[in-house]
Amino acid sequence: MFMHTKRLQFEAKPDKPDPVYARKLQELIGGAWGEMTVTMQYLFQGWNCRMPGKYKDLIMDIATEEIGHVEMLATMVARLLEGAPATAVTKMAMTDPVVGAVLGGMDPQQAIVGGGGPLPADSNGYPWNGRYIVASGNLLADFRANVAAEAQGRLQTARLYNMTDDPGVKDMLKFNLARDTLHQNLWLKAIEELKADGLEDTVAPNALLDEEYAEHAQTIWDLSEGTEGTLGGWASGPQPDGRHEFVYLMDPRPLGDVGMAPPPDPKLYDTYDGSLGEPKGPALGTETGPLGKLKDKLT
Amino acid sequence: MFMHTKRLQFEAKPDKPDPVYARKLQELIGGAWGEMTVTMQYLFQGWNCRMPGKYKDLIMDIATEEIGHVEMLATMVARLLEGAPATAVTKMAMTDPVVGAVLGGMDPQQAIVGGGGPLPADSNGYPWNGRYIVASGNLLADFRANVAAEAQGRLQTARLYNMTDDPGVKDMLKFNLARDTLHQNLWLKAIEELKADGLEDTVAPNALLDEEYAEHAQTIWDLSEGTEGTLGGWASGPQPDGRHEFVYLMDPRPLGDVGMAPPPDPKLYDTYDGSLGEPKGPALGTETGPLGKLKDKLT
Amino acid sequence: MFMHTKRLQFEAKPDKPDPVYARKLQELIGGAWGEMTVTMQYLFQGWNCRMPGKYKDLIMDIATEEIGHVEMLATMVARLLEGAPATAVTKMAMTDPVVGAVLGGMDPQQAIVGGGGPLPADSNGYPWNGRYIVASGNLLADFRANVAAEAQGRLQTARLYNMTDDPGVKDMLKFNLARDTLHQNLWLKAIEELKADGLEDTVAPNALLDEEYAEHAQTIWDLSEGTEGTLGGWASGPQPDGRHEFVYLMDPRPLGDVGMAPPPDPKLYDTYDGSLGEPKGPALGTETGPLGKLKDKLT
Amino acid sequence: MFMHTKRLQFEAKPDKPDPVYARKLQELIGGAWGEMTVTMQYLFQGWNCRMPGKYKDLIMDIATEEIGHVEMLATMVARLLEGAPATAVTKMAMTDPVVGAVLGGMDPQQAIVGGGGPLPADSNGYPWNGRYIVASGNLLADFRANVAAEAQGRLQTARLYNMTDDPGVKDMLKFNLARDTLHQNLWLKAIEELKADGLEDTVAPNALLDEEYAEHAQTIWDLSEGTEGTLGGWASGPQPDGRHEFVYLMDPRPLGDVGMAPPPDPKLYDTYDGSLGEPKGPALGTETGPLGKLKDKLT
Amino acid sequence: MFMHTKRLQFEAKPDKPDPVYARKLQELIGGAWGEMTVTMQYLFQGWNCRMPGKYKDLIMDIATEEIGHVEMLATMVARLLEGAPATAVTKMAMTDPVVGAVLGGMDPQQAIVGGGGPLPADSNGYPWNGRYIVASGNLLADFRANVAAEAQGRLQTARLYNMTDDPGVKDMLKFNLARDTLHQNLWLKAIEELKADGLEDTVAPNALLDEEYAEHAQTIWDLSEGTEGTLGGWASGPQPDGRHEFVYLMDPRPLGDVGMAPPPDPKLYDTYDGSLGEPKGPALGTETGPLGKLKDKLT
Amino acid sequence: MFMHTKRLQFEAKPDKPDPVYARKLQELIGGAWGEMTVTMQYLFQGWNCRMPGKYKDLIMDIATEEIGHVEMLATMVARLLEGAPATAVTKMAMTDPVVGAVLGGMDPQQAIVGGGGPLPADSNGYPWNGRYIVASGNLLADFRANVAAEAQGRLQTARLYNMTDDPGVKDMLKFNLARDTLHQNLWLKAIEELKADGLEDTVAPNALLDEEYAEHAQTIWDLSEGTEGTLGGWASGPQPDGRHEFVYLMDPRPLGDVGMAPPPDPKLYDTYDGSLGEPKGPALGTETGPLGKLKDKLT
Repeated sequence: MFMHTKRLQFEAKPDKPDPVYARKLQELIGGAWGEMTVTMQYLFQGWNCRMPGKYKDLIMDIATEEIGHVEMLATMVARLLEGAPATAVTKMAMTDPVVGAVLGGMDPQQAIVGGGGPLPADSNGYPWNGRYIVASGNLLADFRANVAAEAQGRLQTARLYNMTDDPGVKDMLKFNLARDTLHQNLWLKAIEELKADGLEDTVAPNALLDEEYAEHAQTIWDLSEGTEGTLGGWASGPQPDGRHEFVYLMDPRPLGDVGMAPPPDPKLYDTYDGSLGEPKGPALGTETGPLGKLKDKLT
Repeated sequence: MFMHTKRLQFEAKPDKPDPVYARKLQELIGGAWGEMTVTMQYLFQGWNCRMPGKYKDLIMDIATEEIGHVEMLATMVARLLEGAPATAVTKMAMTDPVVGAVLGGMDPQQAIVGGGGPLPADSNGYPWNGRYIVASGNLLADFRANVAAEAQGRLQTARLYNMTDDPGVKDMLKFNLARDTLHQNLWLKAIEELKADGLEDTVAPNALLDEEYAEHAQTIWDLSEGTEGTLGGWASGPQPDGRHEFVYLMDPRPLGDVGMAPPPDPKLYDTYDGSLGEPKGPALGTETGPLGKLKDKLT
Repeated sequence: MFMHTKRLQFEAKPDKPDPVYARKLQELIGGAWGEMTVTMQYLFQGWNCRMPGKYKDLIMDIATEEIGHVEMLATMVARLLEGAPATAVTKMAMTDPVVGAVLGGMDPQQAIVGGGGPLPADSNGYPWNGRYIVASGNLLADFRANVAAEAQGRLQTARLYNMTDDPGVKDMLKFNLARDTLHQNLWLKAIEELKADGLEDTVAPNALLDEEYAEHAQTIWDLSEGTEGTLGGWASGPQPDGRHEFVYLMDPRPLGDVGMAPPPDPKLYDTYDGSLGEPKGPALGTETGPLGKLKDKLT
Repeated sequence: MFMHTKRLQFEAKPDKPDPVYARKLQELIGGAWGEMTVTMQYLFQGWNCRMPGKYKDLIMDIATEEIGHVEMLATMVARLLEGAPATAVTKMAMTDPVVGAVLGGMDPQQAIVGGGGPLPADSNGYPWNGRYIVASGNLLADFRANVAAEAQGRLQTARLYNMTDDPGVKDMLKFNLARDTLHQNLWLKAIEELKADGLEDTVAPNALLDEEYAEHAQTIWDLSEGTEGTLGGWASGPQPDGRHEFVYLMDPRPLGDVGMAPPPDPKLYDTYDGSLGEPKGPALGTETGPLGKLKDKLT
Repeated sequence: MFMHTKRLQFEAKPDKPDPVYARKLQELIGGAWGEMTVTMQYLFQGWNCRMPGKYKDLIMDIATEEIGHVEMLATMVARLLEGAPATAVTKMAMTDPVVGAVLGGMDPQQAIVGGGGPLPADSNGYPWNGRYIVASGNLLADFRANVAAEAQGRLQTARLYNMTDDPGVKDMLKFNLARDTLHQNLWLKAIEELKADGLEDTVAPNALLDEEYAEHAQTIWDLSEGTEGTLGGWASGPQPDGRHEFVYLMDPRPLGDVGMAPPPDPKLYDTYDGSLGEPKGPALGTETGPLGKLKDKLT
Repeated sequence: MFMHTKRLQFEAKPDKPDPVYARKLQELIGGAWGEMTVTMQYLFQGWNCRMPGKYKDLIMDIATEEIGHVEMLATMVARLLEGAPATAVTKMAMTDPVVGAVLGGMDPQQAIVGGGGPLPADSNGYPWNGRYIVASGNLLADFRANVAAEAQGRLQTARLYNMTDDPGVKDMLKFNLARDTLHQNLWLKAIEELKADGLEDTVAPNALLDEEYAEHAQTIWDLSEGTEGTLGGWASGPQPDGRHEFVYLMDPRPLGDVGMAPPPDPKLYDTYDGSLGEPKGPALGTETGPLGKLKDKLT
């Protein structure tokens, strides 16, 4: 269960309105790498965590913080739009192209749909959606995704930091940048901890390593012309997991046969000249197919 | 420019059809963490890479390989569907619930839309889309996303490995698992190389670290009740970047003021009782606003 | 079955082109609360209505009208774009920023994709989709959704009304505003009628009211700090359905236990330390699980 | 800022696993009318509220509660999946159609992607997205949307209540049903309060009522054959807003002219025979167009 | 403006319910190639048509018919679901896997969201959206898209025809198949007519044919290993437009340089080693950039 | 399997940056009719092709070429953005509206997310998705879709050709236009070849022509008022398939009964007055329903 205090985690007070920037900030609210993503990603990871204790508590601490980040940004956007959509002005747009032009840089939905407020969408107006997040139950795989999310998030925040000189906006972004720094370090540390606790190793998941084809876990296939890739530290030597060597495979050849889709079911009307013969298996529901066998038992 | 050989990178031959499994394999083709994602992510990263040489060549090597992985999986799905949609059988579905039931586990679009072939969608039929990928231009942030993608990809492949005992399917998955192992190691190694080359450091991007609020890059806020989080290695001590310490902040208090949206433009018809006064800034296009000033200059 | 007359329900003649406004009007065509939404919502509600007679006839009357509203707006958009995309002009965009600027306020797809015509999308270019509508079969729930749709629709139309001073555009919007007023009143009246006919009551659906936990249908939990909420008419007294009282629950405490995900299936490779023991139920297909029992019967 | 307690608002303990039902419950988590929708809708409405005081506090109380509802459902789904995906079993699917059949009713992504946990998606695997919500700044329009959301939400919960007989699941749903009853009453009461406070009236927004065409706010157009619609209470008499009368308009005729898209810009290559003449307005960037005039001033 | 008659264009009466088939029929309602697509595609094409007369009238005739096809299918789906969702039964699902299994083949949202009615979505529950359609203003390009839509539509209908033996369903599908046959012929005929009228030619659009590089309009590049492609009629000889010859280009070589992204803006924090030098153009807003020049004029 | 050469298929070198045009070019990368669409459409068609030989080889030749077209456009976009996002400039946006205005015409995500690079999205920032493509297995239906895709693609390229006068951009577009010309001719030729080979005929699929209702394959229903449609070549005479005649059906009447949804399952809480009686079929799982019968056999 959650509780709310009306005070923001950190101040979100622009010195003056800036509707063009209000549109750009939407990227940090509802973009693929925005605060709605980390909020929901950490919440679902916390709820999907199978171990009471330090990991679950940490995840929920950060998840709960992130809801408050959405709140800070939402408040900032509303304030950047103060007095800005200026609907009465827009009627001058075509007779005065300059007026129309500035308005063109704005997000029309912030005015028309949001009434001068923030939207759960990114800077191109595309809505946030649940496919942005992952909560796989495997903490190593998830923490790697978290490091990536915080890195992209800090990168985007840093870019936006250079797109304003409003001291109030910069003040809030200095807080956000710092939190993204911390959180990158935090998830990196938590990955170390998973290894120290013997719960996961370098490769996620720590399973099937003896069943997979070990020789194919070694070779980098040189499929893009040019040999510059072999100048990297990955061209040879041990891999980070300590189990494999790197090998650069020059002039690689395919190992499989020619790929061909099989003869189709005639009732699907795929174009077919019969050259591959009939479908090989007995059809699902025929006498000799698996359903036929089950039906025999039933009757 | 690209070229194609009709032979597959690795064999993709199931022993027998299995339409229910064909649906599940869609997750590896068009899921958020499937092969279309890594294909497009690496291609766009390669095209967005600003340095000729080893990084760009490596990225394009792997990207080009991944197109071939989509091809292997697409071929496998078509073969798993051989003879399977069995349209003539489905008319028994309601009179014979067992028949209908098996068909229910299948993806109806593989038959109706794909004619017994693969679709660019995941195991719930949701289409692959471009918001799944990132190619930010910052290689550290992107390589972290790549490690995450390969980890989630290997995890899902491992889960699917346990959902079949078809030797032909397992044979291909043993190859895929190995490639995902290699690629996790590879991107981890490439991250080390970025640091060794002095191009990036631990935190992405390696910028604004002196401007952000350093004190807020230290504190983990205990916002979820319970203190188990303090039992982790992140409770104190140096952070992985070597620049900061971890501090667990118990009983944290908000630093900002009450968050309030400002007085609205009356022409937007937000519900408002006037208690916050008038919008503070001159409206965008009024005499005293910025557009007014520009118009003055123009006339 | 439907028929069409080429005359519009109401005039849609702008005095002069205005491509920036043409983009904004897309919100009324393909936005979440636009005319495509009410068209499809009412059509599917009409087709899903289980009673021949006055309700179904009314729904289909309004649904059929709304198709014509999409037509009016589509025609208006095409006319607002007359001569406007001006492709030959755009090549000046970078050498002459003013030109580029005005074009920036336009929807590029109206020119590139639509050839100067309307699109089934909103003012940010996001396509209309079927998840915007509801046709639940329960007329009370649906009519409430209809009131909401007409209210949001009128609100957005009113906002757009202030964003133009083109007399022809305003003329059409005065008609649209009036229809939205009528339709709000209409669905409110239809809700009264459902009650008068004894088909539904205040709460939708009119069912399970004796099974749900009555005590939890009373209490407003004070989960956001501050007590201003208790100053509202909802702080105490009878609820609109006449069955319940309002109670404001200050300092609320959770009623449930700690939320924990259970022990995972080991083959899913969730990170797990075993602290919660084994999964409690017999696995689905084991000897002792339900499938095992069924298989026993079959063999 | 938000805080979290690890105890759930209400118990979420199924008696036994049920993976088919776990899929259906996704509708209440990530469906258009599920708990993620009301969570985000109320949060954004609270952040977009322009008046400190009772309304904002109420909205944030309920918003904060709804986050906890997502948590309850997420926990319930994980528990319903306990031991259920049973990956080792699925390999029997084709040789034993009954096994495959049951698995077919499950959500494959809950196992493959979620590791036996909940997803931010609906019962067909479609992800939750931000276009489901509205926070318009106009409280009357928004509260109407809230009533609708709670009505659809309770309706879907009631349907799901009949799809299980697990006492633990039913126990939680009895709580949810009650909350949905309360919240319907609450938003209806809040609508009354807005009127009592003189902030809004019956029609949203309370504006432009004198400018819209009053005569067109009266007439229901009989556009679907059949006259049963005239048997309703809306056929005549005063409208709920007390400002208008209802009039049923039989045999309605269009009021507008023939709708025609105008002559196209030739550089867009629309098919055109010249029959409508040239585009009427001066092209945007020509000497005589608005940009031309501005450029004159600049030079 | 549109009008509606309550009678269906053709009968839609199944002999008995079939909920599994009701799910499949959703593909014809809300799939990418379903009836909602042709409805909206033809409506927007009609509204975007720039010539009064035979083409516009034809398009609107067919568009109006297609709304009625959605209606027929929607009615059929509701009838196929009659008595079928059987919510009280589903509680047996896990104790009796056969029951659960059949229900698994159904669309859960048809029951939970639609109350036993149709949805604006496809057979995997993915909602119809506006990006499925095109109304480009160029009738040749659009009519080609219409032929494709009717071909895919008839193909899918034919596949579904084999998935049922319900005489009532087959009766309706025999009508739909015939309409799809007609419409394919119709749009093919309309393409001939466009040429006969001199409005368009073989290639769309009939423009820039003298500016494009004619030599590159001849050559098929042999980029996939194997020479079977040269056995086709396209290997040599005149092209259908009568303006070009076909040439099969064996062993093709790239014509361009190495593709490289340019030096990045340092404030975007792309990883960059400086090897490509500085960005070549003056930054947009600097003294020497285009904005600087404009600002000079303004001041 | 695929291989890559670092040289582009054709040159992609703009003379100077143009960020507004870089946004528009996104339509050719990730739009519904852009290069990602034809890439994926042809790849999946090739993989789904059921005949080794000339068709499959041709499809894969073109598919492989199209990946290289995405590469050319992606490189062009990055170069058009060189030095352009100019983050340090944007802080002038509100004090200097002209600066803000130009930036408004740009795609904010190209800077914030892409770091000055291309995105897998269209010109309104909407991501490419897998529902844009079709690979049905029926080559006639698919080749018709391919003709349509190349026609829309060339149309959009032609429009964009008029929106720039950068010689380097025009140079590349002259190549693209030519390829789109060739590919239209190519798929038209391949359609002829399918007929010549006796694999398909005029109507897709070449099946069920004797079962569909032949009389309904003749009549164009005059459902939009006006008789201009009868002036077209389609008003009478033979249809292109040589099997049918065209007949224009004036004053058409519906052939079906009144469409009505049936009595609902009471547990779904649809609003219902009982006027249609009880659901006709035995409920799915009752004693007398199909599941009941199966259960009888099992016990």
